[in-house]
Amino acid sequence: MSLHTLAANTLRALAIDATNAADSGHPGAPMGMADIAVVLWTRLLRFDPRDPLWPNRDRFVLSNGHASMLLYGLLHLAGYELPIDELKRFRQLGSRTPGHPEHGLAPGVETTTGPLGQGFANAVGMAIAAKMAKGKFGAERVDPKIWTFCGDGCLMEGLTSEAASIAGHHGLDELVVIYDDNHISIDGSTSITFTEDVSARFRAYNWVVTEIDGHDPDAIEKALMAARVESSRPTLIRAKTHIGYGSPNRQDTAKAHGSPLGAEEGRLTKEKLGWTLEPFEIPPGVRALFDDAAERGQMLHTEWNESIATWKSANADLGAAWDRHTGGGVPADLYKDALAAAGNDKAATRNTSGKVLNALAKKMPGLIGGSADLQESTKTLIKSAPTYFTRESPTIPNIAFGVREHAMGAIVNGLTLFGGYVAFGATFLTFSDYMKPAIRLAALMKIRSLFVFTHDSIYLGEDGPTHQPIEHLWALRLIPNLEVWRPADGPETAMAWSWAVGEGEPCPKALIFTRQNLPPLARLADFDPKSIWRGGYVLQDAPQAAVGIVATGSEVHVAVEAAAFLAAEGVPARVISMPCLERFNAQERSYRESVLPSTMKLVSIELGRTTPWASVVGREGLMLGIDTFGESAPAEKLAHHYQMTPPQVSARIMAWYRGL
Amino acid sequence: MSLHTLAANTLRALAIDATNAADSGHPGAPMGMADIAVVLWTRLLRFDPRDPLWPNRDRFVLSNGHASMLLYGLLHLAGYELPIDELKRFRQLGSRTPGHPEHGLAPGVETTTGPLGQGFANAVGMAIAAKMAKGKFGAERVDPKIWTFCGDGCLMEGLTSEAASIAGHHGLDELVVIYDDNHISIDGSTSITFTEDVSARFRAYNWVVTEIDGHDPDAIEKALMAARVESSRPTLIRAKTHIGYGSPNRQDTAKAHGSPLGAEEGRLTKEKLGWTLEPFEIPPGVRALFDDAAERGQMLHTEWNESIATWKSANADLGAAWDRHTGGGVPADLYKDALAAAGNDKAATRNTSGKVLNALAKKMPGLIGGSADLQESTKTLIKSAPTYFTRESPTIPNIAFGVREHAMGAIVNGLTLFGGYVAFGATFLTFSDYMKPAIRLAALMKIRSLFVFTHDSIYLGEDGPTHQPIEHLWALRLIPNLEVWRPADGPETAMAWSWAVGEGEPCPKALIFTRQNLPPLARLADFDPKSIWRGGYVLQDAPQAAVGIVATGSEVHVAVEAAAFLAAEGVPARVISMPCLERFNAQERSYRESVLPSTMKLVSIELGRTTPWASVVGREGLMLGIDTFGESAPAEKLAHHYQMTPPQVSARIMAWYRGL
Repeated sequence: MSLHTLAANTLRALAIDATNAADSGHPGAPMGMADIAVVLWTRLLRFDPRDPLWPNRDRFVLSNGHASMLLYGLLHLAGYELPIDELKRFRQLGSRTPGHPEHGLAPGVETTTGPLGQGFANAVGMAIAAKMAKGKFGAERVDPKIWTFCGDGCLMEGLTSEAASIAGHHGLDELVVIYDDNHISIDGSTSITFTEDVSARFRAYNWVVTEIDGHDPDAIEKALMAARVESSRPTLIRAKTHIGYGSPNRQDTAKAHGSPLGAEEGRLTKEKLGWTLEPFEIPPGVRALFDDAAERGQMLHTEWNESIATWKSANADLGAAWDRHTGGGVPADLYKDALAAAGNDKAATRNTSGKVLNALAKKMPGLIGGSADLQESTKTLIKSAPTYFTRESPTIPNIAFGVREHAMGAIVNGLTLFGGYVAFGATFLTFSDYMKPAIRLAALMKIRSLFVFTHDSIYLGEDGPTHQPIEHLWALRLIPNLEVWRPADGPETAMAWSWAVGEGEPCPKALIFTRQNLPPLARLADFDPKSIWRGGYVLQDAPQAAVGIVATGSEVHVAVEAAAFLAAEGVPARVISMPCLERFNAQERSYRESVLPSTMKLVSIELGRTTPWASVVGREGLMLGIDTFGESAPAEKLAHHYQMTPPQVSARIMAWYRGL
Repeated sequence: MSLHTLAANTLRALAIDATNAADSGHPGAPMGMADIAVVLWTRLLRFDPRDPLWPNRDRFVLSNGHASMLLYGLLHLAGYELPIDELKRFRQLGSRTPGHPEHGLAPGVETTTGPLGQGFANAVGMAIAAKMAKGKFGAERVDPKIWTFCGDGCLMEGLTSEAASIAGHHGLDELVVIYDDNHISIDGSTSITFTEDVSARFRAYNWVVTEIDGHDPDAIEKALMAARVESSRPTLIRAKTHIGYGSPNRQDTAKAHGSPLGAEEGRLTKEKLGWTLEPFEIPPGVRALFDDAAERGQMLHTEWNESIATWKSANADLGAAWDRHTGGGVPADLYKDALAAAGNDKAATRNTSGKVLNALAKKMPGLIGGSADLQESTKTLIKSAPTYFTRESPTIPNIAFGVREHAMGAIVNGLTLFGGYVAFGATFLTFSDYMKPAIRLAALMKIRSLFVFTHDSIYLGEDGPTHQPIEHLWALRLIPNLEVWRPADGPETAMAWSWAVGEGEPCPKALIFTRQNLPPLARLADFDPKSIWRGGYVLQDAPQAAVGIVATGSEVHVAVEAAAFLAAEGVPARVISMPCLERFNAQERSYRESVLPSTMKLVSIELGRTTPWASVVGREGLMLGIDTFGESAPAEKLAHHYQMTPPQVSARIMAWYRGL
């Protein structure tokens, strides 16, 4: 048996052993892709297991995340900090080897995958980031390939189509996708529902497409080598493989996909593969093979370190920019620039957001992003370069995502994961639904992806209920680890943005802005803008306040008017602005109690679903908002129709208070 | 000016007038597609304005829903019940002409569109339904074409790619899509981000693709005629058009897309078009042209009525099936079959669901659906025909959607809208995120689309947090008009399904099932299963119950064990099963108060986000669930880890109760 085959069989045996030990998992894809993986990792992939974050490493993305044992096997063999005991604890509580690969657990896991298509689109984002960084710092500094594995499932997902179209449009030669073309999905043969001509489709997207036998190491190497030197387009390598390769009774069947082979079929398979070692045992030759690959990577890394040092000493300015790019962090006191840019005039928060974004971008060259064909509506153009990223002008920070919200979300995640960038994607709040799975993965990974959502309520008006968000604010708030910011005016917009780009824990943020103008808010003389970062604070107070009105965004202004009305009626009221409930809930209890005393009668006002506000104002509190779909009409008519004008709100609060 | 051009200009003038009157809206696409629309509606489309629901009508779907004024203009001219005054009230509160077309307002609006790609995928669903109905009843009874307009935006959306792949796979010759290829999207030229070869892409999906000048009526007619007689594949007609056709300063620019032309440019445009009439005025010749078309449709309808009568008298059995197909409604007392099929043994509710589905399908030949490549996992195969719908076997009720959740959702909507079918789509609960926009539109339309979601909690186990739903139950509950059912055992599963297929108001239902086994629940001797349809009910009670434990699905069993523990500790407790909170909230106040007395101390148990449960149990209530992402581990380990085993839950409730 050749050393290559021995190595591939090692990966197969590990997949068999780990899924059998866990009594769950997916052996089929690791067994089918083992040959490709060995060729890639031992002959081409540029990696250094001692420094998994080496900026110039190639990226390896396993978009078919259920094949996680393939990745864990590779990382272990390649010398990453992932001992064999972790592979033995595959899919067990607290292990670094969960059912699907999770970024942040095992080193070398570049992104969290499992929900199909996400890794593919992350890889497109990484390739864009690579092209940007290469454009700025030169290929001597940054020149990675993004090697991506995917299966039929990924290619059926619309997300992948969107991302592939973008990759082809930009000629992202950094990107190489190897398609595990095994003709099997969970329900059986792909002939049941997936008979399109994938190669022709990808050629239509402007990809290079090659077709190979995925078990022939020479053919694999040739195809990978060609992809590595391709310099104008992304490459799809369509590799014919056998799912569950080597299993006498399950190869080429759906049964190999999602169930362990079990003891008996595992034994038969190993017999067929000529495998005689104990479970989880690694042949010394295979160790050496991977050690050699790691050593080559380490040498490349060392040479690169030296060349970086030489280059920096000769290029002070760009060298300093490089240090900022690779060092992370943001300039100090950015919030002051943000506040200055925001001002405090009557404005739609989307407009203020645009000003703040541009002020931040001046200080943060790594701030990049764009919208899903709504640049003017979402006010997210960085105007220092009022045009778009292309392969000819790769340092332009604006990315035109097209009407592809889902890919936008996943590409933003890829840009973020690549390193060196703070990336955002923008669309209308309603269309956050189109990109929900990508937002969720950013939250699961706890990465600083930024999602800008404008047109944040029925007050977008005449476009009507298809475009008017109702459930979306809370649907986002319910995602763990995601911070949802809905500022009410200039200072809150400034502080939300400056928090989002660099403060607090790295976690994704949704920044939510109005289409309609809002007046400035009066603030206390000693107001410290940093109190906004606490997520909720007393905006206006009254001695012996009997009622507390909690509001967010545009409804803070309604709360202020209602409080004045209540005061005139002899009911002193406090107004609490709550731009970020997650931040507020993270404050110490005493602060929260000081803002929202448990003895106070509470009202919430927010133009969205009211139900979950019971967690803040109590079941007995008054929750004003909208619990039905909207209507197509001018905003002021809608305000009246939904009883949300300041006089109507004031009257409703008074009636409720008198009835207590 | 030819009558054709006069008619096209009428549509253009109406779009100019209505958007100017509303001071908002999208004139560009109606002006660009007017020629195509006139040819289609006056020369080909089979419609009868006196019977907008004629089962054998062609369907017209405006996937680029922002072009709503085109549709309203057509419906008005064609004689549908949509007076000119409604066009004058375009985008006003309470009008039947909202910003984007809404199914159920103006007759003839076949589906709600606006969120891009949805109409395209609805049309694929309608085409599948048409093929099914034609296969069963014959082309003399059902033989519609589904004519669909779409723009660049729709074609960029991944949803469209998924749906197009399915349409090509099945050779849906019923489907004709006319692509408004105007090279403009909101951000400007499509060259910014959309340069793929759309024709090649669609050919790769197995579509017929033709390319025409979208302003040449003869070319348009020829292409539409060819599409009408095409009998083996769907057709994409790629029509080169000019957005804002006729506007001297805005044609072919993004400015024509989403803003009214305004008075001056409107005047200049009308001048250029040779239009001299008053706003909203219709030339008599154009009225006559459309009247002729409507008359032809009415004649076809009359002939069809006669042929149906003749056929029915000669085909009693099929005729009766036809009456059921077109009459709507479901057999009486279906729930009894469902209960019998469900039984009350230890089982995963997904398994029980599969039994119930099959029992219902025996009585309801119009019950159709499938899963996103998870047939075995979601237990949604209708076993009377254990294979899949194809063009060769079009009456098989199982549809293999592939790993295309979003298209599945929108296709289910299309199947439902077509009429004659109750359709469902199934996947894991986590992946409801992938199809959220389609679920939302079903809710906005209030149509009876069914969405089956299994693997409904962290107890799916080792697949880990990427696959474990946390926020999803509440994210679904927050969508207005959607009923979320999460049954706890056999009887609840039976009643949820039988409710979903035919009871109550037509609105979409999410049916949510476990992967893991659940024991049977003990019930009171006089238990009436119909009380389940109230959404929440007292499952077990205790005299002078001090604590009420509200739970759903698998957590009802935990609640029962906790109540027994509390009773042993001297704290009498009631267990409230709440399979559908929306239904419960729709009950009269007295019933709700009898189930959940406001004086009772309340606990909620549900393995998902807890926050919104405050609306049920109060801020002071105890909410048990999970507010972080899950972990990859066996289910029983996770239960312990998250303190959700019955002994842990009992102890937590006791500690809380003692601390009150």
